[in-house]
Amino acid sequence: MKADVFIELKEGVADPEGEATKKALRLLGFKNVKSVSTVKVFRIDIDARNKDEAEEELKAMCEKLLANPVIQKYKIEWVE
Amino acid sequence: MKADVFIELKEGVADPEGEATKKALRLLGFKNVKSVSTVKVFRIDIDARNKDEAEEELKAMCEKLLANPVIQKYKIEWVE
Repeated sequence: MKADVFIELKEGVADPEGEATKKALRLLGFKNVKSVSTVKVFRIDIDARNKDEAEEELKAMCEKLLANPVIQKYKIEWVE
Repeated sequence: MKADVFIELKEGVADPEGEATKKALRLLGFKNVKSVSTVKVFRIDIDARNKDEAEEELKAMCEKLLANPVIQKYKIEWVE
C-alpha cells in the first residue's frame, strides 16, 4: 500500500523557504502570486494487512521521526 | 485560487533523503516499510481569471524556477 504523508507547518509558524520562493517568483515577473508555503511529502510504500493497521503505523512514524510536533502537523493520504 | 505544485524526482534518479528516511524508520522498528521517496510541494495562492490561465502560469513557474527539468517532474493539483 502506498500513502503520501504530508508534513506541513502549523498555523503561525514562519515559512522562510516559502517566503523566499514567493519573492523569487515575483522577481521573475509572476506578480499574481499571493502566497507560497512549502510542504514536505514522504511517499511511503508499506506492507500491512489493511489500511487501518497501516495508518496506525504511519501515524507512529510521524510522531517518532517524520514530523516535529512543536511546529509541524501531518496528514496521511492514500495513493493506492 | 490555491494549487499544490508537486515536485518529484524522475524515475531512476537517486533519492538519498528517501533512502535515509527508510533506513531510519527500519532502525526504529518499522519493518513493514518497503520504500520511501520524497516529494516537495509548493502550495501557491494565485490570482487569475480562471483555472486555465492560472495553470499556464504555474507551469511557467515550474519551468523557470521550481523544478529542475533534468531530474525532476512536476504535477499541479487544485486545492480550491
